Amino acid sequence: MTDRIAPRSGTAFELDYGDELVVLDPEGGQVSDLVAYARADVREVISNGRTFDYEETISLTTGNALWSNRSRRMLEIVEDTAGRHDFLLTPCSVDTFRHFYPDKPAHRGCFGNLAEALAPYGIEEDAIPTAFNVFMNVPVDPAGGKIAVLPPSTSPGDQIRLRALMPLVIGLTACSAYASNGGSFKPIDYRIEPAGDDSDGDDRS
Amino acid sequence: MTDRIAPRSGTAFELDYGDELVVLDPEGGQVSDLVAYARADVREVISNGRTFDYEETISLTTGNALWSNRSRRMLEIVEDTAGRHDFLLTPCSVDTFRHFYPDKPAHRGCFGNLAEALAPYGIEEDAIPTAFNVFMNVPVDPAGGKIAVLPPSTSPGDQIRLRALMPLVIGLTACSAYASNGGSFKPIDYRIEPAGDDSDGDDRS
Repeated sequence: MTDRIAPRSGTAFELDYGDELVVLDPEGGQVSDLVAYARADVREVISNGRTFDYEETISLTTGNALWSNRSRRMLEIVEDTAGRHDFLLTPCSVDTFRHFYPDKPAHRGCFGNLAEALAPYGIEEDAIPTAFNVFMNVPVDPAGGKIAVLPPSTSPGDQIRLRALMPLVIGLTACSAYASNGGSFKPIDYRIEPAGDDSDGDDRS
Repeated sequence: MTDRIAPRSGTAFELDYGDELVVLDPEGGQVSDLVAYARADVREVISNGRTFDYEETISLTTGNALWSNRSRRMLEIVEDTAGRHDFLLTPCSVDTFRHFYPDKPAHRGCFGNLAEALAPYGIEEDAIPTAFNVFMNVPVDPAGGKIAVLPPSTSPGDQIRLRALMPLVIGLTACSAYASNGGSFKPIDYRIEPAGDDSDGDDRS
């Protein structure tokens, strides 16, 4: 069953070991911030630095894993029709809206949406890390290191599939920032395919 | 007064608002991992993601600030004779030694050195973030995003000067990893110039 995250909102849910999470951009051009915590101890959390260390790249796609601050693999990317995601930037927030869009209403952003969704799991605001920003298009200038935030290059139906390598709490949003989403806010779809479920006819076990 | 961090070790100390921290590479070719926490609440910590967001670059030098997870400026780089530092990668640790140097003795690395030095401030291992890796030379391949760890390009005496923009706890190391330091382990020197101290004859207030 596919669930929908409404524009500029977020949710949280659990994954068991081996579950596959599919994150899908139904209309195209929409970012989804993803964070992950170990269910056994939510102080273990995805880490962009550990991931860049072990994967030896900042461009993550099929075959790459997302690692935790305890040097363990949390999620593996097993399918990726988009091919471009960001793991450099933090979730948009009241503070980033005030900084980047001072003439627009300050939205609580992905940060506020994640904070509310993750609170029932005992996860505090300060424990929200740099997110894995699914479909986000952040080129780095090779000469000077400057970064740009461009509209996602996704088409309707593009998706990424991640396999849980430990029991996890996931936070997931439909991103709220103007630049990240080409100026318009769209939904994000996701579904969880339990370990051993080959209901899509493709037994990957 | 200049203090010396012995090869493959680390330390922690406090800065007051306005203090300037000078980190100096006495022999050249040596990395120093730096982390920072707000003294008022050590859950506030430097964040590479927030820094990349607000500074709009991954290449940080004079004029750039290091931001916290609460979207506040913690440190400003006010002088930088090296010009090249890294904020992508996490401190080396027993786990990274086992991964990258399986045939060498596993060292506790910057991570272990920081954990011991920061423990008296109530800072746990899980709260050690991606460090600001002073003098570390990590080019990003513009085409595919792959990263490399090259020897630092520093000459003896190269230094960076950071001004504290709030009361801070600082963790600082002489890095322990082979690739990061060109295969040899050297000391790091540092000194704290208190706010308002113009003992170097240069009143920057």
